[in-house]
This record gives sequence, structure tokens and C-alpha cells, in this order.
Amino acid sequence: MSTPRRSSPKKSTQTVVEHDLPVDTGATGTRQETDSMGAIDVPAEHYWGAQTQRSLIHFSIGDDHMPKEVYHAYGYVKKAAAIVNAEAGKLSQEKADLICKVADEVIKGTLDSEFPLYVWQTGSGTQSNMNVNEVISNRAIQLAGGKLGSKKPIHPNDDVNMSQSSNDTFPTAMNIATVFMFTEHLIPKVEALIQAMWEKAQQWVDVVKIGRTHLQDATPLTVGQEWSGYVTQLKDALDLVKQSMKGLYRLAAGGTAVGTGLNTLPDFGPRIAAEIAHLTGHPFITAPNKFAAQGSLDAMVNASAALRALVVALMKIANDLRWLGCGPRAGLHELNIPANEPGSSIMPGKVNPTQEEAMVMVCIQVIGDDNVVAIAGSQGNFELNAMRPIIINNVLHSARILGDACEKLRQYSIEGITLDAKRINTYVNESLMLVTALSPVIGYDKASAIAHRAFDTHTTLREAALASGYISADEFDRVVVPAQMVGNPHRDLQATRKDLFAEVEKTKSR
Amino acid sequence: MSTPRRSSPKKSTQTVVEHDLPVDTGATGTRQETDSMGAIDVPAEHYWGAQTQRSLIHFSIGDDHMPKEVYHAYGYVKKAAAIVNAEAGKLSQEKADLICKVADEVIKGTLDSEFPLYVWQTGSGTQSNMNVNEVISNRAIQLAGGKLGSKKPIHPNDDVNMSQSSNDTFPTAMNIATVFMFTEHLIPKVEALIQAMWEKAQQWVDVVKIGRTHLQDATPLTVGQEWSGYVTQLKDALDLVKQSMKGLYRLAAGGTAVGTGLNTLPDFGPRIAAEIAHLTGHPFITAPNKFAAQGSLDAMVNASAALRALVVALMKIANDLRWLGCGPRAGLHELNIPANEPGSSIMPGKVNPTQEEAMVMVCIQVIGDDNVVAIAGSQGNFELNAMRPIIINNVLHSARILGDACEKLRQYSIEGITLDAKRINTYVNESLMLVTALSPVIGYDKASAIAHRAFDTHTTLREAALASGYISADEFDRVVVPAQMVGNPHRDLQATRKDLFAEVEKTKSR
Amino acid sequence: MSTPRRSSPKKSTQTVVEHDLPVDTGATGTRQETDSMGAIDVPAEHYWGAQTQRSLIHFSIGDDHMPKEVYHAYGYVKKAAAIVNAEAGKLSQEKADLICKVADEVIKGTLDSEFPLYVWQTGSGTQSNMNVNEVISNRAIQLAGGKLGSKKPIHPNDDVNMSQSSNDTFPTAMNIATVFMFTEHLIPKVEALIQAMWEKAQQWVDVVKIGRTHLQDATPLTVGQEWSGYVTQLKDALDLVKQSMKGLYRLAAGGTAVGTGLNTLPDFGPRIAAEIAHLTGHPFITAPNKFAAQGSLDAMVNASAALRALVVALMKIANDLRWLGCGPRAGLHELNIPANEPGSSIMPGKVNPTQEEAMVMVCIQVIGDDNVVAIAGSQGNFELNAMRPIIINNVLHSARILGDACEKLRQYSIEGITLDAKRINTYVNESLMLVTALSPVIGYDKASAIAHRAFDTHTTLREAALASGYISADEFDRVVVPAQMVGNPHRDLQATRKDLFAEVEKTKSR
Amino acid sequence: MSTPRRSSPKKSTQTVVEHDLPVDTGATGTRQETDSMGAIDVPAEHYWGAQTQRSLIHFSIGDDHMPKEVYHAYGYVKKAAAIVNAEAGKLSQEKADLICKVADEVIKGTLDSEFPLYVWQTGSGTQSNMNVNEVISNRAIQLAGGKLGSKKPIHPNDDVNMSQSSNDTFPTAMNIATVFMFTEHLIPKVEALIQAMWEKAQQWVDVVKIGRTHLQDATPLTVGQEWSGYVTQLKDALDLVKQSMKGLYRLAAGGTAVGTGLNTLPDFGPRIAAEIAHLTGHPFITAPNKFAAQGSLDAMVNASAALRALVVALMKIANDLRWLGCGPRAGLHELNIPANEPGSSIMPGKVNPTQEEAMVMVCIQVIGDDNVVAIAGSQGNFELNAMRPIIINNVLHSARILGDACEKLRQYSIEGITLDAKRINTYVNESLMLVTALSPVIGYDKASAIAHRAFDTHTTLREAALASGYISADEFDRVVVPAQMVGNPHRDLQATRKDLFAEVEKTKSR
Repeated sequence: MSTPRRSSPKKSTQTVVEHDLPVDTGATGTRQETDSMGAIDVPAEHYWGAQTQRSLIHFSIGDDHMPKEVYHAYGYVKKAAAIVNAEAGKLSQEKADLICKVADEVIKGTLDSEFPLYVWQTGSGTQSNMNVNEVISNRAIQLAGGKLGSKKPIHPNDDVNMSQSSNDTFPTAMNIATVFMFTEHLIPKVEALIQAMWEKAQQWVDVVKIGRTHLQDATPLTVGQEWSGYVTQLKDALDLVKQSMKGLYRLAAGGTAVGTGLNTLPDFGPRIAAEIAHLTGHPFITAPNKFAAQGSLDAMVNASAALRALVVALMKIANDLRWLGCGPRAGLHELNIPANEPGSSIMPGKVNPTQEEAMVMVCIQVIGDDNVVAIAGSQGNFELNAMRPIIINNVLHSARILGDACEKLRQYSIEGITLDAKRINTYVNESLMLVTALSPVIGYDKASAIAHRAFDTHTTLREAALASGYISADEFDRVVVPAQMVGNPHRDLQATRKDLFAEVEKTKSR
Repeated sequence: MSTPRRSSPKKSTQTVVEHDLPVDTGATGTRQETDSMGAIDVPAEHYWGAQTQRSLIHFSIGDDHMPKEVYHAYGYVKKAAAIVNAEAGKLSQEKADLICKVADEVIKGTLDSEFPLYVWQTGSGTQSNMNVNEVISNRAIQLAGGKLGSKKPIHPNDDVNMSQSSNDTFPTAMNIATVFMFTEHLIPKVEALIQAMWEKAQQWVDVVKIGRTHLQDATPLTVGQEWSGYVTQLKDALDLVKQSMKGLYRLAAGGTAVGTGLNTLPDFGPRIAAEIAHLTGHPFITAPNKFAAQGSLDAMVNASAALRALVVALMKIANDLRWLGCGPRAGLHELNIPANEPGSSIMPGKVNPTQEEAMVMVCIQVIGDDNVVAIAGSQGNFELNAMRPIIINNVLHSARILGDACEKLRQYSIEGITLDAKRINTYVNESLMLVTALSPVIGYDKASAIAHRAFDTHTTLREAALASGYISADEFDRVVVPAQMVGNPHRDLQATRKDLFAEVEKTKSR
Repeated sequence: MSTPRRSSPKKSTQTVVEHDLPVDTGATGTRQETDSMGAIDVPAEHYWGAQTQRSLIHFSIGDDHMPKEVYHAYGYVKKAAAIVNAEAGKLSQEKADLICKVADEVIKGTLDSEFPLYVWQTGSGTQSNMNVNEVISNRAIQLAGGKLGSKKPIHPNDDVNMSQSSNDTFPTAMNIATVFMFTEHLIPKVEALIQAMWEKAQQWVDVVKIGRTHLQDATPLTVGQEWSGYVTQLKDALDLVKQSMKGLYRLAAGGTAVGTGLNTLPDFGPRIAAEIAHLTGHPFITAPNKFAAQGSLDAMVNASAALRALVVALMKIANDLRWLGCGPRAGLHELNIPANEPGSSIMPGKVNPTQEEAMVMVCIQVIGDDNVVAIAGSQGNFELNAMRPIIINNVLHSARILGDACEKLRQYSIEGITLDAKRINTYVNESLMLVTALSPVIGYDKASAIAHRAFDTHTTLREAALASGYISADEFDRVVVPAQMVGNPHRDLQATRKDLFAEVEKTKSR
Repeated sequence: MSTPRRSSPKKSTQTVVEHDLPVDTGATGTRQETDSMGAIDVPAEHYWGAQTQRSLIHFSIGDDHMPKEVYHAYGYVKKAAAIVNAEAGKLSQEKADLICKVADEVIKGTLDSEFPLYVWQTGSGTQSNMNVNEVISNRAIQLAGGKLGSKKPIHPNDDVNMSQSSNDTFPTAMNIATVFMFTEHLIPKVEALIQAMWEKAQQWVDVVKIGRTHLQDATPLTVGQEWSGYVTQLKDALDLVKQSMKGLYRLAAGGTAVGTGLNTLPDFGPRIAAEIAHLTGHPFITAPNKFAAQGSLDAMVNASAALRALVVALMKIANDLRWLGCGPRAGLHELNIPANEPGSSIMPGKVNPTQEEAMVMVCIQVIGDDNVVAIAGSQGNFELNAMRPIIINNVLHSARILGDACEKLRQYSIEGITLDAKRINTYVNESLMLVTALSPVIGYDKASAIAHRAFDTHTTLREAALASGYISADEFDRVVVPAQMVGNPHRDLQATRKDLFAEVEKTKSR
């Protein structure tokens, strides 16, 4: 549908769109809006209609609001639907243009204050869909010079929601919102954290420290090796997050009410998915089976599981850092963790690993959020999983706090961590588990006896070894050399690096 | 505190308190504040100090803020501490009065905008405690005509935090906040819901309906009996909520840094608990063991478990209502659930059990929140469980949304539910499981044969029974009478009523 | 039942019971059994009937079997039902005697091998109930000289199951089984653990050690104080376990199929509860509302929550012990944890806190089991929660492993723990947080400066304090005395003791 | 070590291996075994040694035993290690042959009764590793004609455990065991279930039924479409299970005590991985970073998450089936679910959806097991996640019961399900939501009015529509045709089929 036609003689019957009207109804008090339940007063300064208002009244539960990201994503859905409907000749180009114009405002967040609904609403998300439909309708009516609430020229159901149901578009918006949250927020922040930790791993590749298993002294490794483990854990977990997007790319749109595509075009599914892919720059496609896509939220459950994978890794890492910073005098204290604030209201000069604590709490919250998502994901019935608001809210919440916590941890802790080299060195030298190196020489049983003797007599391993008569001083000094007991740290980091880059390459080529 | 006393001869050495100064620093731009880490700029329009500002910078994670209820509770703690400190002669009466005056503002919520910190902060809640200390200090300084940030005449640590640590006061504030949330919000709303359901139970005590076990037709009962079960479930669960407060009444205050009461009075614990009890009207006492009270958050974990008990019951009830309203044409549809809003953006005239769906989601969320609380509760170390912010946030969140959801469910669904009497009646009469009444007469095996025959031949139970030759028509008509198969509904409701009141009595006498 | 009565003139019509027949069908191969689905072969060496056999075939899922404790509890139910039925004249005394005799065998475990069913079966537990009915029927038939499978003289449904349904008796058996598991297994083992820890607390009441908050050095306390916290946590949690039994005492029996008591005596509920109370010695009563008692498993969910309360406490304690034993050279190592076995297959002489690790794992398992119970508890529908097998299996499993783990932890770790007094002492003396004692003297800000200086210059607190000029040497030595900074440990233990005994008293009087 | 040397004159000093000795120590009573803790009596009829015996004593907790699959997997590890050690010249070929021979017995399960340890043991799995080492040692000693307990010629540590630690081999065995459980048990059973459901979907592709959203009547779809959704859900979830094996293929072996590879060959990691791949036929490789592979169990956590994905789908499906079978007279009853057993002990002739109930319980258990795995996975410290036994036990348990439950559900329910065609048809025709087809013709608002009128007046949709005057009878009959409202079911199934095969192809090519 070409521009020339718009400026054709038929123009007089056409809607005049005031493109530059600011977002402001220009009214105060109340305005009457109607839906199939009848009429209801809404605040005149808002664009929303009857169904939004009813939801506000019936569902003012707590202070959990449908995340704004869902509405921004819905903006893409409405815009793409209008474009496809117009192309198919179901919707006039004028109407489509109006809808697209307002959808762009939705996407940009200009209309954020028009989306006040709560998470705890209808399980299909219909009320949020209708909120979008109503706001786009009234804002478009305003732009077209019409009367708010008149549903003319843009009807919230017949036009904005054309070819759609909440049942197919809400999960579509959920997927879009999650992909954006992952790609623009979470993934970059985790990658920055990985990079920061990788730099530490490289920096400390040769610093020999004591290993600990079961919290007990074990054989040595280098600090760089230890941190290469952290980096690998995070990389592997982040890879799961990226893989989970494969399921999110499959959109339900086109299934309408129950997956059959009633009241839509036969190829609306692939066409709107292509349009959304075009508008967002992400490889969305139509879900091959709409009954699964609407009756379940399995792709979201999997995305949540991937977030949990991240926190399972992060919790171990954050705890390690807390413990390695434990002290300063009466703990392990291999690490100096940056002091960002006074640690105690009563103990002067106290410094605490607060970033790590915040991260541990975030990790536990994500485990709980994920438990919610899994339970909710299992509670679908027939053609609808009516647990959508709770699922999208928990997934976006997890991704949001996790990304932020990674950023803060990196910025205010990881990057500033230094080693307590003296303490690290002392531990290595005092360790009884260096005895392990003797095992291949004198056998496990004799080596055990030496270690026990050293512990029982509070002597050094060397003293106990020589006293045992199992080994000579020369042999001991040749074999028991911590720096020779750590394998090949440079090779280990090289292997880690290769693994890191391999993933990067694969991700790129996907 | 009266003006005359202030104009006594001692006046010259006394602080002049401007009692009517509005909450407004009267400044813009920035103000320099200091703590042991040095100086930092804070927004001049706010009362908070250096440590609050540092926390804002280092912990801007997501959009989860420490609940205001915690600060209101902290107001009681600071007020009570000042009173006890003054009585003990550790704090001048003037200082105490200043602190009490501002604490009252904190309690009333007048200073809510001064408490901006995030949930994801130090695990002890120290930053929120210092936020309170700093705001009370500066506001008191303002009232005393001093210079904000000068810490004179009221020092945030030495005065406002006197005899206290975050380690003992933060869990104290958690307990107070939770007790208020339970008693003023959750419990009344659940009790109102119970009452509304109890009225329905009484109203429908004689309406015979089909029972269902395994989702399959079973022997009949009355609607009132069914609803008496709901009422009992809720009552029992609510009782657990009330019992959980017993643990919350035990306050850590007085243990200071690690539970030993260092830098406080020997009897500060019992005295501040008594003062808090006096101020709040709740029976708070000092925890008999401060090491448990600070090293664990077990009473909070138990309170959370009680919330979970409520939702386990509510989820069953909400699901029952959803299913009993299933239809209107192709489902059980024994109940007409009120239509509060259009149910679908694409299916005209659709009505959905949205309140029940919202409740189910709230229930799942509380199960997840509780999972978080349990995990966090298990992660204490030594003299501190540093998972406090996540625990208080989840418990208050659960209680908040649960109370609200109960209110909405009652108001917009339960109270308006009516019976589809025709459908209910049809089901009872068609049921094959009325055969159970024949069992004591002809034995289980013959009764089974009759039921199978009726099912297989698509006939009524009566027809199959007579055809079997096991029983005469007269005998059948005498034995198989649904209304005689429901036991004694009035007696059942009487027993339920007695149980309900027994609990009420016991609760009162506690 | 005396022989004379049996040799009365009525003898010809009476059953002759062979009281001393061993448990042995005396047959091999297969025997045909029937139920309403028809005939089926069962192994002739077993007593079970058709429905058990069908369940074995259809539900051989994994290796999780219905716990034996459920069957033992069912023995009480069947015995009590027979007694009440006989007293009411519904069941002949001869039949009742036969049933009681076999029920006693069930209770004693003599027939354990006759109960082979899986956990994953019908959600009502009907198959396990029928398993009991069939086994009692056939064993009674054998004792009466009848033909196995003939259902004469004792019919599994009409006689053994008389006045009962699985729907009311299975939850009754669940409650009985759980009460026994708690009172005979879990509670004594936890109490023994508490006692062992309490002895350590008393023994070490005066040993001053460094406190740790946020894993960082804090002000001192005594080892006894620390352990009194553990004792208190466990006592409080155990109290919740005991309280949870109040709900378990309320039995569903008497509600039959859907709670109305169809096909049973009007007062069967209270009478069978009284009989069960008599037989078991526990204060069981009839549930005031059978619809709640059969439609929900809320009392079990609460019992599970109480188990979780225990593990939340135990996990903290076990982790503390692991960390306090961390070393021996490169960790905190305040405690010597007994070495029960070699710790490593490769590191000779390694000793690990294995009991504590096992306990931590048990704790995590119980948290997960409890999550299962809560979810399952929420999934009831209408007149039945059909999640019974999973709930009873998880609750009994949790209680079983928890009791055992407490016993092993006590026996093989707690009782043998000793202090590394030298290390403990060194930590206290080196701690910078002793500075807290200076706070009331010189103020928080100056005290902070001293602590920071000591840390930055790697000097002792005393050196830094004197160098600061804020305090004299004499004053420092007077104020900074660790042993004076721990409050009053003896008073603390006295308070703990009082609290412990108060609970004991209250429990006794319940 | 070359074959010629074996047949050299030195042969007389070589071990003679008795290859055909049955597994039987031939002894009774006790035998003394020793380890670094000293001597201990073990039952002479068993091969295990001192450390196994100590673990049996110290860790008899509950009835959870380390799964046999772990030992079978360990058989591969020990065999592969012996082969690599021999090839590298570290172990004599004779010793290697002995170890390999016994390892084969371990793999085959011949020695299963020699592995009695509990799940709740040391968190590293060392005791199970030593159990394997001891049994292989003694069995090999027996085969070589030596004295049990002498550790000659095969020492449990120096020979069987050569180049290994529990820390690297236990997670290796975990991964192998899980891969076998997935590939040989779980995946085939799920695929068979998918196939069975896919056949139903195809069979019923054209049967029009009412759709349900929010449990309320919605627009129609076909039964085949509905089941294609189930098939798709399962296929997508199974794909996640398969993908999770990618992480499991990466083996820790070669890292030894802390990941550095101390006391092993520099290339032992890749070599043993290659050997294990060769022996098992699965594409195992060496983990690129051993510190992550030993310090975490992230790959297991992800495998568990994939199992959870399966149950989230299965729970929805099983619930749908239960509800669609609800009745027979007073429920939806669109499906006839096979009756495999009597459903009630009191209600004659009752039939219940027991397979679906068992599946729902299994699903909930897996969600709980997975919660356990996630929490445990987060609790690693430094160079070891000491939560291995709990994790492997839960993952294998979940996979085991899930596979079995899928098999039973398929065999005893899915395959026998038939349609209640009459009921299905009635529902479609009575539905008010057919009104949706009118929406594009007369607009959403008028269509709404018609639906409401039909509901309020208890008339058919057609009657209400004509009475409204909004549409003519002809138009109504043209537009409102259920069979035309289901889109294109054949195309939908074709798309599903394509998606199914695409995955099959991709899986094959992996």
C-alpha cells in the first residue's frame, strides 16, 4: 500500500494523523469506557480502557507489577501484526500506520505509565494484552483526532488485536521480552564478569597455593588454576543460557485462541514471526506446533533452568571468595577483598565481603524463582497454561537481579581483589598434604604414616618424613616441591582459553 | 516534652528542639557526609549519610527494595533503645527525646522516602540499620538546630545505635515487622475469607451433590460439607500462622555484635524487649539465647512455613473452585463464578475464574518464596546468618500478596458464587457410585458387577441393578437415596463450628 | 477367646482357629485369585490377592516401596475397626478375633514380606489398603482352615475393610506411622544429640574464642556460648516437630468414601480413634472435619515443615563444625574432629569431616523431600488428595535418615570433638575486633581509625592504639581484655538450661 | 610390557591367574583388614576391606544405598585406568590384566553384593571408590592365588587407584552412570511413549472437540491437534535430556586430587577418556578444565534440569488425561481410560486414572529431586563439591522412576485410551464459544452480546444469535461450523512430524 494512494483524492475520507501530539490525554477527572461488561469510569488522564480499569480494581494484590519489558515486547507484536494484517488486506493501511506509530511509542517506553496492571491477574495475561490494545486504540484515536473511548477509528479488539488472541500473543511477548533481557542485560554482564575473572586467572597463573578438599588441606595448585575453574563454570553455564534462547525463538503467534489459528490468516504464524524477527533483529520463527506453544511454557521453564545453572556456579564462586577472604587475622585470608563500606555499626573498622553476600542471596532467590517457574510450568491445562504472569515475572526478575549482581560483583569486588601472598605461601609450606608426592615413591601406606606422625607430633612434614626413615633428606627435597606439584598451569589455562574461544566461535556461527 | 521544662535554668546547656519542623532538609545539590571510609557526596535534599550513599552506589541491583515495614519496625527499636539507654543513664534525656521524636516519624512512615536501599546488600542488614541511624541522626540534628552531617549532637553510631549492633537489632526489626504484617494484614484478611466461606457452607448445608475422588464420580455429599472442609483447612493453617508468632516474639536485641551483649547493659535485652512490647502492644520478650537468635533465623523460617501451610490449603481450594466452575457447557459447572471482566480478547463473552487463577499463582509464588527462605535459613555461619535481607523480603512479600489475594478472592469471587442447582442435581442422580449403598446389603462383589454393567450398557444404575437380579426394585428404592447417603451434614457443620470456636478461644487465652 | 466357648454346642457353625500356624502358605506355584476385574494368578507362596497382584504388574516403577511402617500402622487400623465393628454387632466376634489375630502379625512385622507394593501406585493408597485387606483375609482364612482366595470366612472388602474406605483409612495409617516414626526414632535421636552438644557447651563455657560474623573476625565469645546457640536451635526445632503431632493425632477414619461416613456407624469415627489411641498409647482423636481430613494432607505437610525446621538448624550447625575443623594447617582449625576413616584414596593421612558432610547432604535431601510434600499437598482435588503415597514416603524417608544421621553425628563426631586450644587462643589475641571495646570509651570513629591502622600496618591492635594517641597503654590494657568482652557465659547457659527444661516440662504436661 | 616377556623364563615368578574362580571368598567368620587407621574385622565372605567396613559402621543412615550403576560405571574407570597405566609402563601388564578381569566382573554386576555402602557418606564418594579398590584388590588377589587383605600383588591404592583420586574418578563414574541410565533406560522409554501418543494424534486427527482455556469452554480443535501438542512437548523436553549429555561426556579423570593431575601422567586425562569412550561406546572426552570438573557438578545439575523439563511436560499431559477421563457421568469424560484394577475398597465398580496419578507423583518427586540437586550443586567449596553422593543418587533415582513411569503409562494407559465420541460431539455442539467465528463478521462487541444472551437465557448460540438480529440464519449456519474452525489439522500434524524427524536427524548426526 503506497504513499501516493494516501495523498489521493480519497484523502478527505481518510483519517488525518497528528504525528506530533505529545503523550498526554489533556484531560482530568474521569472518562467513561465500555466493554462487554458495560461502562466504567477510568481516570481521564490515562489512555487505558474499561478492561484495564476492571483489572486494577479486582487485582490490586501486593506491589508486583507486570514488568515493563513485557509491554515493550508487546509493542513489537502489535506492530508486526498490523503490518502483516495490512499486507494481507485485512486491515487498512491507515489503521495499520496508526497502530504502528503507537506501537513504536510502546516499544520505546513512552507509554510505560499507561501499563499499571499487577502480576497477579488472569493467568493468560489477557488483561495486559487488553491493556495494550486499549492504550494503542485510544492513543491512535487521539492521533487520528477521534474521541477517546469511542473505539473509532481503531477498535482495541477488532483492529489492534486483529488475528490475535492473548493466548498466542502473550507467550510471544514473553519470549521476546526474555530474549531482550538475556541479550541486552544478562549475557553482556556475565561475559564482563567472566572476562574480569579470566584476567585474574592469567595474572595469578603461577602463584602456588594450597588446595582444599572437604575444607581440609589438600595438595597445591595455583591461584590461576583455581580461577580458571571459576571461569569455566561460568562459561559453561552461560552457554546454557544462550542455548535456551533456541526455544524462546519459537513463537506461538498465529495460533490465536487454542492453537488452530481461528480468525487469522493461514500463514499468519510464519509471517508475523518473520516480521518480529525483522523488527527485533533476533531469529524468531513460528513455533512448529502451536498447541504445545500455548498449552505449555516449556521454553520458559528451560530458560529459567539455565538461569539456575548460572547461579549454581556463581554461588560456589561467591562462597569461595567469601571464605578465601575470611579473616583478616583468624581466617583463611588468602584474598584481600575490597572494602567498599564500613562493615559494622558496632565493630569499628570491620570489613565484610558484602558483594559476595549479595550475590549469594541473589543466587538463592533465583533458585527459588526457578522453583516457582517449574511448578507453574507443570500446571497447565488443556489448551492453555494459565500461569503466564507468574512465570514471566519470575524469569525476568531472576535475569534482572542476576545481571546487576554480576556487574556489581565484578566492579566492586573482583576487579579489586588482591592476594595475601605471604599467607598463601605459608599455607603451602606448612601443608601436610605435600606428602602425596611421596606416595608414588614410597607407597600410600608409608606416606600415610608420615602424615599422621607430623600431625600428631606438631612437626613439619619434612621432619616427620626423615624421622620415619622411609626417605632420605635428599630424596624428600627432590620430590616434595610444591611448585612441581601443580602440574602445568600454563597448559591448563591454554586449554581453558581454547574452550572459551571455541564457544565464542560456535555462538557466533549459530 | 513540655516547653516549660525546657525553659528551666538548665536551658542554656540544653538543645533547643524545633518540634514543628516539616520533614524537608531545605537544601538542594549535594552535601558531604563522612564515615570511616572517608567523605562522600550525598543528595542534599535527603537526610541519609555516607553509608547509605555507599550502599546505593554499590548495590543498585534490580528493583527490590528493603520493605518499608522493616524501617517502621526499626523505628520502634531505636525508640525503645533510646528510652532504655536514657533510663540507664547512658544517654542524656535530651538526646533520647530527640531520637524518640524522629523514631516516631520513622514509625509513622513520614520518612519513608529516606530509606532507599536495596534488598541485595550486606547480609546482616547493617546498611539498612545505618540508613536508619543516619536519617535519625540528621533529622534529629535538624530538629536541634545543628548541621547535617556533623553528627552533633546526635551521632549515628554512638547515640542512635547505642547499645546495639545490626546483628541483634536487624533480626529484632524483622520479627516486629513480620508480627505487624501478620496481625494487621494477613490474619484479618484470611479470617474474613474463612467467614465468607463458612457462610456459604451453612447456606448450602443440605444441597446434595456428587462427590469426586481421583476426579472420578464417587458417593454424594452436600455442598455445605464440601465447603466445611475448606473452612477447616484454612482455619488449621491460620492457626499455624498464629503459632509461628510465638517464635517471632523472642527478640535478639541485647546480644549486640555476637550475642554476648558487649557494649550494652547486662539487662538491656529484657528491658528493650519489654519496652518494645509496651510500644507495639505485642508480647515481645527477650530471646533466651542470643547466639541462636543471631546465628539463625529459624523463627522466620518457621513463620514462612506457616505461610506455606496456608497456600497449600488455598491452592487446593482455589483449584476446586476453578474446576467446579469449569464450563459453562462442557465442564463440571456446579458453580457459577462471578464474571468480573471479559475473559478473552478473541472469544467474545468468555468468562474465566480469574480470581482463582491469581490465587493459584500467588500460592505457587509463596511456595517458591518459602523455598528461598528455607535455603537461606540454612546458610548461616558462626555468629551470624547473613541472609537476612532475602529472608525478610520473601516473608513479607508472601504475607503481603497472600493477604491481598485472600481479600480479592473473597470480595470478587467467593461472596458472589452461586450454585448451578440443576447441574448438581443431574450429576447426583446419574451417578453410578450410588451403588455403594448396596454394598452392605448385597456385598461388594455383586455391587461391583452392577456398577460395571450400568457403565458398559450405558444404562442407569437402577436399571442395571434390577437386571442383575441381585436386588428388588423396592429394596433398591429404599436403599439408594442420595439424600440418605450424606451422613449428617448438620452434625458435621456443628462439629466444624465447635472446632472453629475452640481455636478462637484458645487463641484469645494465649 | 477360650476353648470352652469354642466347644459349645454352637461349635459346628463356628470357625476353628488354628492359632499356632506359622506364616507360610505351604504352597508353591500359582494360585488363582479374583476381584471385580476377574481372575488372576498370584504366587502361591504369598497371601496377597488379585488387587495386589495387579498393582505389582502395573506399577513396578523404580525401587521405591511403600514403607513397612505404613503397613504396621494399618495393622492397628484393621484391628481397631474389627473391634469396633464387633462391639457394634456388625461383625461377628469370631471374625473380629481372626482379623485381630492377623492384624497383630501385621503390626509386629511378621507379614512384612507380604506387602511388596510400590510407592508409585494409585494416589489414594487403595492398592496398599487392599493389599492389607487381602493378606489379612487369606491369612485369617488359613487360620480358620479355609481355602485361600475363597474370601470365606473373611472377605477382604466386606469384613476386613468393613466400615472403611481407603480414603479415610490410608491417611489414618499415614498419621499413625508418622507418629511412631517421630516418637520412637526421630525425637529420641535428636534429643540425644542435643544432650551431647549441651554437655560440650557446659564443658567449654569459659573458653574464650573469636566470634565471626560475615565470616570475618568479630568480637569474642566463649565456645560454650556458641554451642549453647546450637543447642537452642535444635531444641526450638524439635519443639516444632512435637507440636506438629497435634495435627497428626486427628484421624480421618470414619469418613469412609468421601467424608460423610457412608456405610459406617454414625459414631465410628470417635470410636475407632479411641480404640487406636488405646492400642498405640498415643492420644489420637477423630478429626473434627472429615472432608478436610480426606481432601487434604495438611497435617502431613506441617509435619514435613517441622522436619525441615530441624534440618535448617542442623545444616548451619554441621557447616559450622566443618569450617571450625577446617585445616589442620591452612584453615580455622579451632576444633579437632574425630578421624574415623582415611579421608582420601590419593592423599595419605587426610582426615575429613565426613559425618558433617553426610549430615549436610541429609539436610539438603530433607529440604527437597519437603518441597515434594508441599507441592503434592497442594494438588488435592475435591474429596481426595490423591498424592498420599508420595507424601508418606517422603515424610518417613526424611524422618528416618534424619534420625539416623543425628545418631551417627553424635556418636562418631560430636562426642569426640576436642578443642585446638592453642589456635583458639591465638585468634582471640590477634583479633582487631577487640577494638570494639574501645568504642564506648573513645567513640566509634576513633576506634575505627585504630582498627584500620592496625590492619594496614600489619601491627597489633595495641600498637596501633597507642600509636594513635587516642588512648593510653594503661587504659588500653584495662579495657581490651577478651575474657571481659564475652558478657556472662554462665548466665547465658543458665538461661538456655531454663528454656530447655521449660520445654521439657510443657511437653510432658501436654 | 610385551607379551614375549610374559612367556620368558621369569614366568615362574609371575602370578598365575585362575580365570575361572567363581565369585566366592570361600570363607566364613571374619577376616582382618587394615588401612591407615589400623586393623578391623570384616565379614570373611565378602571381598571388601577396612575402609568399606568402617563406612558401613559409621554411615548406616536410612536405607539409601549408593546406586549399583555407579559401581558398574566405576568398573569402566578402573579398567580404563589399568589399561592406560600399563600402556604407559607404570603398571605391569600382569597387574593390569588382573584389574581388568575383575573390573569386567564389576561392570557386569557379578560383584554387586560387594558394594553395600550408603548414600550418606563422605561427600567425595571416596568410600565408594575405596570400596571398589578394595574389592578389586581382594578379588584380584584371590584370582592370583594370594591372601585376601594382604594387598599383594594388587594394592587397592597403589595399583587399583593408580593415577587416580576419588576426586576425579567419582565424578567420572557419575557421568558414565548417568549417560548409561539416559541412553539405555530413560530415552528409549520416553521415545516409546512419544511414539504411542503420536499414533493417537494421527488416529484422531479429524475428531473435532471443544477446546478449553482457563478450564472454560473455548473454540474447537481436533483431538489429534491436542495430542500433537503433547508429542511436541515431550519431544522438546527429551531433546534437552539428550543435549545435557554433552556436558556429561566431559570427564574429570586425570585431575587427581585437586585438578592438577598430581601423581598421574601428563596426558592421563585424554588417554583415559579415550579408553572409556572405547569401552563404553559413548563419546566421552577429557574435561578441558579439571578445576571446574572437580570443584563443581554443574553438568549433573544441568542433566537434572533436563529431567525436570520432562516432568514439567509430563505433569501437564498426565493431568490433562486425568481430567479428560473425569466422570464417567459427572465429569468431562472425553476419554475412556483403561481400567486395570478395581478403584476403590468401598465403592464397587469404581475406575480411576491410576497410571496418570502415579505419573503425577513421579513428576513431583523429580521436581523435588531436582531441587535437591540444584541446592547441592551450589554447595561446593574450593577444589571439591562434596555433595556427590546425594547428587548422583537423586539424578539416577529421577531417571529410573521417570523411565519406568513412562513405560507403564504407555503400556497400561495411553495405548488403551479410546474416545467417548458422543460426549465429545455434544460438547462441541453446545459450546457458546463457537461465537468467536462471528467476530470477524459482526465484530467482537456484538458477538459478545450474543454469547452472554445465550448463557443468560440457557439457549443455544444459534437461537441467541438469531434473536439478536445481528446475523441471519443462513449466515450463521455458513460461518459457525465447528469443523471449519479447527484450521488445518493435517497440516499441523505434518509440521509436527517434520519437527520430530528434524530432531531425530540432528541427534543422529551428533
